[in-house]
Amino acid sequence: MTRGGLNNRLLELLGEEGWLTSDLQTYQRDWLGIQSVELMGVARPENTEDVAAVLKLASGAGVPVTPQGGNTGLCAGSVPSGDGAIVLSMSRMRGILNINPAEFTVAVEAGVVLADLNQELAEHGVMLPLHIGSEGSAQIGGLVSTNAGGSHAHRHGTMQDLVLGLEVVLPNGEVWNGCRSVLKDNSGFQLRRLFCGAEGTLGIVTKATLKLAPIATEHATALVSLAEFQTAVEFGKRVRAVADNFLVGLEFFSNAGLELVLKNLSSPVFPLTVRGEVYVLIELSSACSQIPVGDLLESVLEEAFESGQLLDGAIASSEAQRTAFWKLREDIPEGQRLEAVQLKHDVSVPVSRLPQYIKETRERLEAELPGIQVNPFGHLADGNIHLNLTPPAGRDDFMNSAERLSNIVYDIAVEFGGSFAAEHGLGQTKVGVADRLRSPVERRLMAQIKQAVDPGNIMNPNVIIRS
Amino acid sequence: MTRGGLNNRLLELLGEEGWLTSDLQTYQRDWLGIQSVELMGVARPENTEDVAAVLKLASGAGVPVTPQGGNTGLCAGSVPSGDGAIVLSMSRMRGILNINPAEFTVAVEAGVVLADLNQELAEHGVMLPLHIGSEGSAQIGGLVSTNAGGSHAHRHGTMQDLVLGLEVVLPNGEVWNGCRSVLKDNSGFQLRRLFCGAEGTLGIVTKATLKLAPIATEHATALVSLAEFQTAVEFGKRVRAVADNFLVGLEFFSNAGLELVLKNLSSPVFPLTVRGEVYVLIELSSACSQIPVGDLLESVLEEAFESGQLLDGAIASSEAQRTAFWKLREDIPEGQRLEAVQLKHDVSVPVSRLPQYIKETRERLEAELPGIQVNPFGHLADGNIHLNLTPPAGRDDFMNSAERLSNIVYDIAVEFGGSFAAEHGLGQTKVGVADRLRSPVERRLMAQIKQAVDPGNIMNPNVIIRS
Repeated sequence: MTRGGLNNRLLELLGEEGWLTSDLQTYQRDWLGIQSVELMGVARPENTEDVAAVLKLASGAGVPVTPQGGNTGLCAGSVPSGDGAIVLSMSRMRGILNINPAEFTVAVEAGVVLADLNQELAEHGVMLPLHIGSEGSAQIGGLVSTNAGGSHAHRHGTMQDLVLGLEVVLPNGEVWNGCRSVLKDNSGFQLRRLFCGAEGTLGIVTKATLKLAPIATEHATALVSLAEFQTAVEFGKRVRAVADNFLVGLEFFSNAGLELVLKNLSSPVFPLTVRGEVYVLIELSSACSQIPVGDLLESVLEEAFESGQLLDGAIASSEAQRTAFWKLREDIPEGQRLEAVQLKHDVSVPVSRLPQYIKETRERLEAELPGIQVNPFGHLADGNIHLNLTPPAGRDDFMNSAERLSNIVYDIAVEFGGSFAAEHGLGQTKVGVADRLRSPVERRLMAQIKQAVDPGNIMNPNVIIRS
Repeated sequence: MTRGGLNNRLLELLGEEGWLTSDLQTYQRDWLGIQSVELMGVARPENTEDVAAVLKLASGAGVPVTPQGGNTGLCAGSVPSGDGAIVLSMSRMRGILNINPAEFTVAVEAGVVLADLNQELAEHGVMLPLHIGSEGSAQIGGLVSTNAGGSHAHRHGTMQDLVLGLEVVLPNGEVWNGCRSVLKDNSGFQLRRLFCGAEGTLGIVTKATLKLAPIATEHATALVSLAEFQTAVEFGKRVRAVADNFLVGLEFFSNAGLELVLKNLSSPVFPLTVRGEVYVLIELSSACSQIPVGDLLESVLEEAFESGQLLDGAIASSEAQRTAFWKLREDIPEGQRLEAVQLKHDVSVPVSRLPQYIKETRERLEAELPGIQVNPFGHLADGNIHLNLTPPAGRDDFMNSAERLSNIVYDIAVEFGGSFAAEHGLGQTKVGVADRLRSPVERRLMAQIKQAVDPGNIMNPNVIIRS
């Protein structure tokens, strides 16, 4: 079929609300503005049947399709890698189909926004236990397709651990109905897990059945300062040993990051008097009023103070303070964005090697570019580090050495037994890095799976595997 | 290569300890004796290189290979589907490579036995939180390849949720080194999850990096009797709402099952005076002495008694009693085996539909074969039911109607939004059922993945997908 023919068929199928060919700015550019392309058009289907019809037509015409959720990804995975492709937006598929609080499950369409879902679930005493900064715009389909992580991952797992069942439209337009809603399902290969983190390269997730948790009613939150990362890791392990069941937040940020927030954001609240090299935010939560999370946290801090691990600490005594503690941590990226041009990274290493990783990376970056500002922050419980870089004052040529600098960050993570792509996925940005750092065997396995499921390479080409 | 040639090469490679061609009884027959075949031989490699060499030779000669761990599976997945194949036994690869208690991880070879591993881990204050009846013989490689479940799955997930990284030898003898040890790893398709539950059809798991938990030091265990399954489900939900974080056991069995244990086993201890249609074993565990699991359990039971949910109940006041409560539940299969010929099933349904599922299945089975004894037991927290059948007295022709009876059990599970294969996998036994109950789209997806990774169909043919 010609493109003209395809255009007419899509307009017929989806109508003017469902097939857009003008004013596409919000669809053709990714969150960070890394990628910006010309689109053939934007399909906004209302149901699975329409998604299937679009993929059938597109694959017939050989036109690539990139599914797009909230378009908040940080690796340019939700906009096409070249001009002339179709963006398939899930924004009109926002149905919350079945909340089953007794079962601790919910069935949703892929376009539902995380915050909207949790607001609705709260009325039933349950929650989807995934916490990320973009929850106000991130959609379930995108969370599934990027296997989103966030700060609760240590306690509740990443998105794939919350997926019980999926409905996926395959590249040829066939619909795989895997919407079972049981934890134990070994009726063949774990397809429901394969589509998690596939970043839209194997098909389009249209529905999901998700595992919920009782909503947490008790919270105990503290912020502490420590002299060095090694102490922070030891402190974190002690928290785990005592309160592992309730540990929903074990976040860290460096003094460099704090400085950026205090300098660039209006009226941040910093509750501590003694500064350190690193700060840790601890949050214990429970759905049960009989669990003394407050006492637990106090006893952990007390012991840590006595053993000399902590320089200073504060326990949130109100919801407002709790929010303020989290805001400090969550404003780090914004504080850095306002400072200067930056290089963002997302890696993970075994927790006990985190201090050595940060030390070694800092040294090799400093040797490469003296005066470079290294800002590590992230999730101490699972070793997920966002190690972002700001140039020395007046170095306008910073971005020219971007690849060389980033490779230092990625290579050492792999040397340390970790991952060069932790919770943000690969998208287009990291495919080159992936092809450099993954083994030929691993790359071939992934290419064989892609080829098997999407032989026409219609689905989000050049993401995960470079064509 | 001729078989004679292959035989000589394998003998050269593995030596007489590593390549067995006589006295193969223990290898050629599965646990339940469903399948028994003639083998070309049994390879017992000592390391990954030998496994790779065996697969390279076998695939070159076109001889199928079935990996075998503890050979305790219940679906005949660990013995070949036909004569003349090679069994690759992992029994000589028992190395515990790296225990990292601070990191809550361990790296092991695939032949390590679960009970041996946990005994070793206990000395470091950590555990692999997977509990199944066969833990004394089940090996890590088998647990990974069957994505084992068990009674702790509600709290800690199934085996795939405990796998951080894998090393897998592919059918052509290439080695995929996916032994990273971080929770957050989105560096491409989730291969580590794809090999979980693949039952040796995509390659042979040789090493695994596993996620551990702090060892539970506090336990509170109770056994209660209830008038009907509906009440048991409501009681279970109440337990979840209050003690979800600590709920490691929520097991159920019926009065029919209890009768079999009391009748056929020597001196079982039954602590209750009032019988019911169903019994529930609750266990709360914590690694932290500050958590009042005992008080929690008492308050849950108290409230349940007051609301009339419970007929009778007992809290274990000693480790001996705790063991006795668990033994009652775990002796159900043995009690039934001693009674008569039986048909075993493993399905899961959404928990809230479990009572209706059991009712409807009972009725349709009774209509098919009046007087048939239906014995449902299993895991109330995740809806995993082992619904086993014993014939009416004197019905020697029982096994002739086996397929018809089993199909009733499987079909209704699927009708109810559940799975016909919950925690035991498919093996050879359930491939026919799978091909009848899975959609053509799902079957094709699985066949495409199998074809992509094992084009020669060397690895455990006729398991998961019938050739």
